[in-house]
Amino acid sequence: AYSDKVIDHYSNPRNVGTLDKSKKNVGTGLVGAPECGDVMRLQIEVDEATNTITDAKFKTFGCGSAIASSSLATEWLKGKTVDEALSIDNMEIVEELALPPVKIHCSVLAEDAIKSAINDYRVKN
Amino acid sequence: AYSDKVIDHYSNPRNVGTLDKSKKNVGTGLVGAPECGDVMRLQIEVDEATNTITDAKFKTFGCGSAIASSSLATEWLKGKTVDEALSIDNMEIVEELALPPVKIHCSVLAEDAIKSAINDYRVKN
Ligand code: FES
Repeated sequence: AYSDKVIDHYSNPRNVGTLDKSKKNVGTGLVGAPECGDVMRLQIEVDEATNTITDAKFKTFGCGSAIASSSLATEWLKGKTVDEALSIDNMEIVEELALPPVKIHCSVLAEDAIKSAINDYRVKN
Repeated sequence: AYSDKVIDHYSNPRNVGTLDKSKKNVGTGLVGAPECGDVMRLQIEVDEATNTITDAKFKTFGCGSAIASSSLATEWLKGKTVDEALSIDNMEIVEELALPPVKIHCSVLAEDAIKSAINDYRVKN
């Protein structure tokens, strides 16, 4: 049984898409889960004056829980500073979506994708 | 990297939906993959006079490869007799979609769902 929130994000995922990775203020994270072989791409666009995330997009071939985790993550990212975004923990995603133990790695994928996108942004700046 | 066929079925899945499981000539299979916790439902509608599968539908929260495997499976099922359907092997799905080793269990899920749906149909008839 999936929680209503997982079903909501799965049926109507937020912020699916692509940001222009050639832009200096866009960070791109691409990560994979060894558990299931799924991959996730997550991108952030940062307002450099305020260090605030103004946009976030994702794409994944992962399961319903991976889609829900990354959809939720992009919602949480918008409006946060880069430092605040770094402190997003996968267990907050697990709690919000009521993910079962076998799906925890899907939320880890989302956290890793956030950190990878931030790292890419920082390397570029 | 996913094959073009996986991407095609993932982006445009065939036969997503539900058949009326109260009907005597509809068989419903519901299976889960221990590897990743994903579930798949697959249903067949059978013409009892000819023992031929006239319709097939699926639904899954599984990953892109699970969606592609079950989408392909429903295409293959239509027009087959129940006996022919029983001989669909997951490795044919793996080959057709060029699934990598870590995704073989997604095709197993589809084969199990077919067998479970056929079993349900037979128990009802
Ligand atoms: S169904 Fe489990 S990873 Fe594809």
